[in-house]
Amino acid sequence: MATISDIGVSAGINILSAFVFLVVFAVLRVQPWNDRVYFPKWYLKGLRTSPIESGTLVGKFVNLDFRSYLKFLNWMPEALRMPEPELIDHAGLDSAVYLRIYLLGLKIFVPIAVLAFSILVPVNWTNNTLEKTDLTFSDLDKLSISNIPLGSPRFWTHLVMAYAFTFWTCYVLKREYATVASMRLHFLASEHRRPDQFTVLVKNVPPDPDESVGELVEHFFLVNHPDHYLTQQVVYNANKFSSLVAEKRKCQNWLDYYQIKFSRNPSTKPTTKTGFLGICGARVDAIDHYTSEIARISGEISTEREKVVSNRDAIMPAAFVSFKTRWAAATCAQTQQSRNPTQWLTEWAPEPRDVYWDNLAIPYVSLAIRRLVIGVAFFFLTFFFMIPILFVQSLANIEGIEKAVPFLKPIIEMKVIKSVIQGFLPGLALKLFLIFLPSILMIMSKFEGFISLSTLERRSATRYYIFQFINVFLGSIITGTAFQQLDNFIHQSATEIPKTVGVSIPMKATFFITYIMVDGWAGVAGEILRLKPLVIYHLKNWFLVKTEKDREEAMDPGTIGFNTGEPQIQLYFLLGLVYAVVSPILLPFIILFFALAFVVYRHQIINVYNQEYESGAAFWPDVHGRIVGALVVSQLLLMGLMSTKEAAQSTPLLITLPVLTLWFHRFCKGRYEPAFVKYPLQQEAMRKDTLERAKEPNLNLKSFLHSAYVHPAFKEVDNEGDESDEDLVSTKRHQSKHSSKHSFSSLAEDPERSLL
Amino acid sequence: MATISDIGVSAGINILSAFVFLVVFAVLRVQPWNDRVYFPKWYLKGLRTSPIESGTLVGKFVNLDFRSYLKFLNWMPEALRMPEPELIDHAGLDSAVYLRIYLLGLKIFVPIAVLAFSILVPVNWTNNTLEKTDLTFSDLDKLSISNIPLGSPRFWTHLVMAYAFTFWTCYVLKREYATVASMRLHFLASEHRRPDQFTVLVKNVPPDPDESVGELVEHFFLVNHPDHYLTQQVVYNANKFSSLVAEKRKCQNWLDYYQIKFSRNPSTKPTTKTGFLGICGARVDAIDHYTSEIARISGEISTEREKVVSNRDAIMPAAFVSFKTRWAAATCAQTQQSRNPTQWLTEWAPEPRDVYWDNLAIPYVSLAIRRLVIGVAFFFLTFFFMIPILFVQSLANIEGIEKAVPFLKPIIEMKVIKSVIQGFLPGLALKLFLIFLPSILMIMSKFEGFISLSTLERRSATRYYIFQFINVFLGSIITGTAFQQLDNFIHQSATEIPKTVGVSIPMKATFFITYIMVDGWAGVAGEILRLKPLVIYHLKNWFLVKTEKDREEAMDPGTIGFNTGEPQIQLYFLLGLVYAVVSPILLPFIILFFALAFVVYRHQIINVYNQEYESGAAFWPDVHGRIVGALVVSQLLLMGLMSTKEAAQSTPLLITLPVLTLWFHRFCKGRYEPAFVKYPLQQEAMRKDTLERAKEPNLNLKSFLHSAYVHPAFKEVDNEGDESDEDLVSTKRHQSKHSSKHSFSSLAEDPERSLL
Repeated sequence: MATISDIGVSAGINILSAFVFLVVFAVLRVQPWNDRVYFPKWYLKGLRTSPIESGTLVGKFVNLDFRSYLKFLNWMPEALRMPEPELIDHAGLDSAVYLRIYLLGLKIFVPIAVLAFSILVPVNWTNNTLEKTDLTFSDLDKLSISNIPLGSPRFWTHLVMAYAFTFWTCYVLKREYATVASMRLHFLASEHRRPDQFTVLVKNVPPDPDESVGELVEHFFLVNHPDHYLTQQVVYNANKFSSLVAEKRKCQNWLDYYQIKFSRNPSTKPTTKTGFLGICGARVDAIDHYTSEIARISGEISTEREKVVSNRDAIMPAAFVSFKTRWAAATCAQTQQSRNPTQWLTEWAPEPRDVYWDNLAIPYVSLAIRRLVIGVAFFFLTFFFMIPILFVQSLANIEGIEKAVPFLKPIIEMKVIKSVIQGFLPGLALKLFLIFLPSILMIMSKFEGFISLSTLERRSATRYYIFQFINVFLGSIITGTAFQQLDNFIHQSATEIPKTVGVSIPMKATFFITYIMVDGWAGVAGEILRLKPLVIYHLKNWFLVKTEKDREEAMDPGTIGFNTGEPQIQLYFLLGLVYAVVSPILLPFIILFFALAFVVYRHQIINVYNQEYESGAAFWPDVHGRIVGALVVSQLLLMGLMSTKEAAQSTPLLITLPVLTLWFHRFCKGRYEPAFVKYPLQQEAMRKDTLERAKEPNLNLKSFLHSAYVHPAFKEVDNEGDESDEDLVSTKRHQSKHSSKHSFSSLAEDPERSLL
Repeated sequence: MATISDIGVSAGINILSAFVFLVVFAVLRVQPWNDRVYFPKWYLKGLRTSPIESGTLVGKFVNLDFRSYLKFLNWMPEALRMPEPELIDHAGLDSAVYLRIYLLGLKIFVPIAVLAFSILVPVNWTNNTLEKTDLTFSDLDKLSISNIPLGSPRFWTHLVMAYAFTFWTCYVLKREYATVASMRLHFLASEHRRPDQFTVLVKNVPPDPDESVGELVEHFFLVNHPDHYLTQQVVYNANKFSSLVAEKRKCQNWLDYYQIKFSRNPSTKPTTKTGFLGICGARVDAIDHYTSEIARISGEISTEREKVVSNRDAIMPAAFVSFKTRWAAATCAQTQQSRNPTQWLTEWAPEPRDVYWDNLAIPYVSLAIRRLVIGVAFFFLTFFFMIPILFVQSLANIEGIEKAVPFLKPIIEMKVIKSVIQGFLPGLALKLFLIFLPSILMIMSKFEGFISLSTLERRSATRYYIFQFINVFLGSIITGTAFQQLDNFIHQSATEIPKTVGVSIPMKATFFITYIMVDGWAGVAGEILRLKPLVIYHLKNWFLVKTEKDREEAMDPGTIGFNTGEPQIQLYFLLGLVYAVVSPILLPFIILFFALAFVVYRHQIINVYNQEYESGAAFWPDVHGRIVGALVVSQLLLMGLMSTKEAAQSTPLLITLPVLTLWFHRFCKGRYEPAFVKYPLQQEAMRKDTLERAKEPNLNLKSFLHSAYVHPAFKEVDNEGDESDEDLVSTKRHQSKHSSKHSFSSLAEDPERSLL
């Protein structure tokens, strides 16, 4: 058992290491040659140019202004300075609301911690139960509920506190839900014209022998929404086409490189080899070679485009249908079109850049089966993932390696290498699995058939949280694999489970404090350092970057990563709520995590991350639901713990807490969730339509919408010339209409013509 | 343990008693003086007139045509003869689909029984496990799974059968769901114009200091549905008004009575007393008295109407909003109107006669709280209902009565009376509770705030089924009160519960066979006899009926009673599915029940019941869901039973069954449920609109809709003259537009005018 001073030392070390991270960050960020690693967002926005191009030779790479080293923490106030509306404008609502999750943590836990330290800690401390027992204990345990004697009336304090904490959490949650809902509605209402406001995605268009998908869709909506239908855009299966486009881009890049090389050194014509990776095969003139290559691929691209557009099989039974008004799109998205509820399914079109194109054409029955398969697969992944890992581990020991590759035996038998293998290999399989887990979950979500990146990330986040809840939270409290726990739980009664878990909770406080410091504090401090992107950027810069466009691409701003970040925060919410009554000593560590993470992520969102899509904070119901879930878990575990403390009279009082909490959840769901899944007709649709009609009576909506939902590969071909600001366009959504206005018109204009 | 012959004797007795019922019914139904008891539906339809008015004196009351007694079972083929489309036309879709539940029972269980008797019964019979044990057993048990030795490979048969039964049930369920869904859509599409097709109920209209509810609604929809809004009808709180109307009706009835009396016997002027029940107070001239009473009440009614219409507090924040087209109503009902999802809630207006007027104005928060309260109350009702009953029983014993009313002691001490009290009283409290249970559940549903009678009945049915499942099914298998079971289950592990229940199942087969015979067979045979309505009708006829209208009212056709009937059928589905693998001997009894009930209820629906509303078979998702639930329960219990039989290798195979079944349920829910909750725009709305516009271009929809949703009390006042065919109007929906066209126009025309 760790004493308070142990924890203090550990905390000191962790704070120190976090501090070192921050200092290193402060030094690295002011170096001009790291500028693209620490401020990519501004490059993408076109608001910052490379500092390398100006200044002296040394000044290009090393910052010589020593004053900037002194103010090494001044990024913090800078990060906090940008007001929220500006932040929404700069980085989107998703990012701004994501930061509110950290704030929510502070709002919930700071008052709880104050209350707990002023009431619960004295009540716990002024007992001497632990001293009477033979158990070894520490000062830390004296602060927890373990120090209260069995059946003591002092448990009433904990009961009252459980109520107080629940009410406070629910109150904050409700207020936050209301705020986010109104932020979302305000964001949607105040936004500029966006194609997705007018567009509905129609899936499962039934096959028709006489008409093409495009015609069918047009006729259907002309009949059923006669006054409102504007235009439609069928969805093509353009996988081969996109790979051709990617190949062409690569050749173009090489051509640029050789042209620059030649212009710098006109004496020698650059040459290349035609074979594998340019290291074997016949030597040819590089510029000529790539020019002809590009010509060839361009030809293939246009053939392929013809084929895609004219081939019936390449047209998927889905379409983006646009309407004349927001009102019409809102009504169409929310209503059922056909008698058969598995055909003509309409839903809001995701933002163009949010669309996950591969999943647009999955039929209903297949979707249902995929959901079942993934459900079962996830169950096995969660509870049985240890089995293959144990198997790999059993293979990957010294004897196994020696048997498999006997000639390595002398090397392996060396003491240093042996100990490395023994210490490292068994953990490696598990570590690798955990690193790849988010990707595995993402693949599962993709297989399940969601049609937008935002939904994919949300679903992956849910699964990741469940995995962490079972394997990290429960797995740490009751030691053993998830499968053993499952086996235990199945053979225990419904009242035993909270008891089993509840009893172990106070004992694990030290472990979780360490966990918060290592995973939370150090993780956040590591996040701001961006070590991996830093290294990769410089490696790429040295070895691969040939043109300015390459440098642009070597820059990896990354995203918030909702599917991994949010479940981690949720784990801290869970720990905080569970330990608030049991061992309040955990709370300051969690509060520190939330505060640090808030500042760091605010900085990163402003300067680094480049959001891939904008869902308008559609993830908030998930966040809210998981916190409520954590609250219920904490109440059940407290109930289990109390019943072992012979404070049985508390059970009926404690059982009303989850009932009330679940009711609160249902209430909030009904009250606020529609703002996230529906689209109110009144303010959002009708008012904006009316306003727009008054302001721009001659607006040509058709040309505005016309190529919004063209497959990105098609778009790229048409945007060839200004490819370098492609990224810029997609982040600055107001510009997208200009850039797409004259793109790919022949295809989008009348996709059926070519099919007839 | 009952032997087969015991069961045979018992079955014989029950069949005989059912047969006696049927014979008595056959005799009673051909008597002219019972005509209104056994054929009220035809009277209400106006297609049958009293046979008493024609024929000889004796022939008026007793049927002298002896041939009709010989063909005493000819009502059966008659009941089966009417084809389904005609039945839908005659009694509505609800009734026709309700009958399909019985048919579904036959479709599921007849093939299952054939399979079980040809495979399972021989497999069970050809063991002699029971003979080897010391247990007393009967031939009946030899047919059941109990006769298979522990760990025998013969259990594979049961496993395969469980799969076969599950697949067959799911197949039939899916086909039936598809049929009913298409029947519903066809019914909705082929129907004549109905006000609810054009109307949406708007609830939770936010208060506005400047405008009345009517104005507010009108403005809101004029702004947000400018091209489609037609008219609106605010909802009044007319409780006092309706009681006045009822009083007036009573007086009118007395007046009619005395006028008839006077016209038959003009010599003596009829008199009445003004006091209580006409038996005390001053004697006055009856006709004058009631004429003046009616005049007084009429005055009060018009004052009250003024008050209701002009008083702001009497106007509830809800309104029926009608649109110009079905399409517009469909879109409005399915979309969210306002930013705040608790205001301007729109939903399909129920049929006018289906509206439950009292619940139209409950605000959102109150609804949420009511739901919580009723949820908790239902939990306690289900698990703790025995406590007050035990308390009453403890009071209502001999000693208790003697103590309370000592002077009755000599009477009570008489042997006959004592034994009656001892045998009768303890059961009385329970019996009374069970009789009143459906009404209690109905009151709970009403308190919960549903706005249509159909939803009220559906919700009550769900609750009644849960109650029966816990208290009848589980309560009979594991003897003990529900609370004791709950206590047991909480302290048992998840794997123990199916074991505990599963093990007791084979032993209870005899009990449930008796239950089916007594509750099912006799209950159904009793239903056709209509003993209670028969007695009440004749009592009323002798003592109360004064006028022809009274006789009309004394006729009590009753309804199907979905809230009590459906849960009973579901219990048989549950028993059938649970015992199909365990003790197939139960199946023939259940099949006989379904067959008998089908014929009897078909007869009753054709000749007796008068449906109160038409929901278009909206209850089918509930029916489907409960059968799937029963299937899952049967699989879990089989799993529990098998694991005690040392056939543990079957567990993984058996656990996939509930997973697949639940997946099947989700699939069906997505595939068919929208047909029951949404309203497809294509065929149902747009096509009908287009058709109608073509056929009746000059239709005045406004006048058609105009008074459709006026409170029934207001309507009655305006329809005064032709009150006698009020019931007729409400059953023959096509006529309702005629009768309501010129009613209550001053109020409905412009409800705001009077408010200003």
